[in-house]
Order: sequence, then structure tokens, then C-alpha cells
Amino acid sequence: MVDIVHRIGIKSPAAQVYKALTSLEGLRSWWTEEVLGETQIGGKIEFRFCAQTGELIGSMVMEVQELNDSKGVRWRCEAGPEEWVGTEITFQLSEQDNQTIVLFGHRNWREAVEATYHCSMKWATFLLSLREYLETGKGKPSPRDLKIDNWN
Amino acid sequence: MVDIVHRIGIKSPAAQVYKALTSLEGLRSWWTEEVLGETQIGGKIEFRFCAQTGELIGSMVMEVQELNDSKGVRWRCEAGPEEWVGTEITFQLSEQDNQTIVLFGHRNWREAVEATYHCSMKWATFLLSLREYLETGKGKPSPRDLKIDNWN
Repeated sequence: MVDIVHRIGIKSPAAQVYKALTSLEGLRSWWTEEVLGETQIGGKIEFRFCAQTGELIGSMVMEVQELNDSKGVRWRCEAGPEEWVGTEITFQLSEQDNQTIVLFGHRNWREAVEATYHCSMKWATFLLSLREYLETGKGKPSPRDLKIDNWN
Repeated sequence: MVDIVHRIGIKSPAAQVYKALTSLEGLRSWWTEEVLGETQIGGKIEFRFCAQTGELIGSMVMEVQELNDSKGVRWRCEAGPEEWVGTEITFQLSEQDNQTIVLFGHRNWREAVEATYHCSMKWATFLLSLREYLETGKGKPSPRDLKIDNWN
């Protein structure tokens, strides 16, 4: 099993960061503009990623498995790219030194394929987008996301 | 064992990317301004990280274990933070779609401690600095690096 992990500090209260991770409006502001579904426990959220031309390049469905008020979120990938299905995504929040520290994990990859390398880098840039959204009001969700390589 | 992996594409020939990874001048332009030592195989390179006030906050020594002309580099950490000693860092290069694709690995962490989360995110931002240096002539090496959390 392979895990992607990251740590970022955001100058915003944990309750605000939590809201950006648990509301459709929040998720649309830093990860992808196209988010549909239900964000309560047991709900399924669909994330769609389009090219700047509008063409759909990928989508995934997450089941919300855990919501720990202002402390954390856990999703399980139910559908999407084959190597994502069954993986788990967590965001754990804590306040330290006037920042909210986010410990991010995307766990249980069956193996480290080249897509894992891509996704690890891509998650880092989306976490920077999450921070930018919370600190300035404007993130870089797909399709306005930072492109990192010849895949996206 | 835990690995940090990332993939980034840089609009610059592989030979230029290789030079940024294998010369003191190159390394000083994207990772940390303070780099000393010998960059040939068997050589030891010391990387020193200072706060913007000048105070030393950390350093590490890498032994150059492999140089594969314009294809890759492998270092082994010989001294530095306890959790880094014995880990290996690799950069594998290939040209695709008019970019140099860098597959980065920082492998053989004994366990995923919170420092691993921090370093994974920090490596992503240094790879963006490497790209910026190669594409624009100006990277963000320490101490002018992007700060990502309350640790650095």
C-alpha cells in the first residue's frame, strides 16, 4: 500500500477550512468548479474535471465516511480512475501558531504507479489553492488549476 | 518503508534540468542558496538552510551515488535530520511532449511521521521552484522559498 501525505498551514480558523472541505461551494472554490452531490455522512459527492476547452477529462465519486466537526473529513473513492477506486482521502485539522494545520492523506494506493507521482504533486498544488482561497478569497480550482506536467 | 514521490513537467531540455540537479550553481538556484561540496559520483554535497534572519535552521549531507547523463541522479542522505539519514533521493528525467518530465522520489523513510507530510509538501514547492528557475531564470531557493506551514 502506498500513501500520499502532505502538511500545509493556512492562516484561517479551522472552522473556515472545515467549511471549504465540507460544502459544495467550498469544494468548488479550490478543487474543481464542477462538484455535485450530498456532503453529509454517507453522501456521495461527484467531482468532474474538464479541460479549458470544456471537454470532460475525468471524474470521481467520493463517499463521505467521516465528518469530525472542524477536526477532520474522510472520503472513500467509490468510482473514478481505476487506481483511485477504494483509496481513502483524509484532511485532519488542528490550530497551531495562528494557523490551521492540515494533515492531508490519500491512502491505500495498491502500488506506486506513475499516476501516483502525478497525483502527489497535483494534490500539493490543490492544497496551495485551498490556502489561497481561504487567505485571499480566490483559489485555483480546475479548469483554472495550475498545470504541472504533460498530463494535466 | 514510506516514499515521497512527485511528477513535474518542465519546458526545458533534459540536459538543462540535469545541470540544475548536478552543479552547485544549479542547486543553489532552486533548492537552497547555501550548497557546498563535490557533485561527482562519490562526492558529498552539503545543503544548508537558514531563516531569513540568517539563523541556521538545518543542514544535510548527500552522497552522490548515481549520475546517469541527462537521465537521472541518485543521492543518499549521510547526515542531517535523524529521519532523513539513510533515505534516498532520485530524479529521473525523460523528454515527452516538448517537456522534461521529472519523476522525483525521496524513499526509504522508516515511517510516515509528521515531518514526512511536511517534506512531501515542501518538495512539491521546491520542484515548482526548479521549474520556475529553468523556465524563467529565477527560482525560489531557501531562504526565499515558499513557506508552507508553521515549521517552514
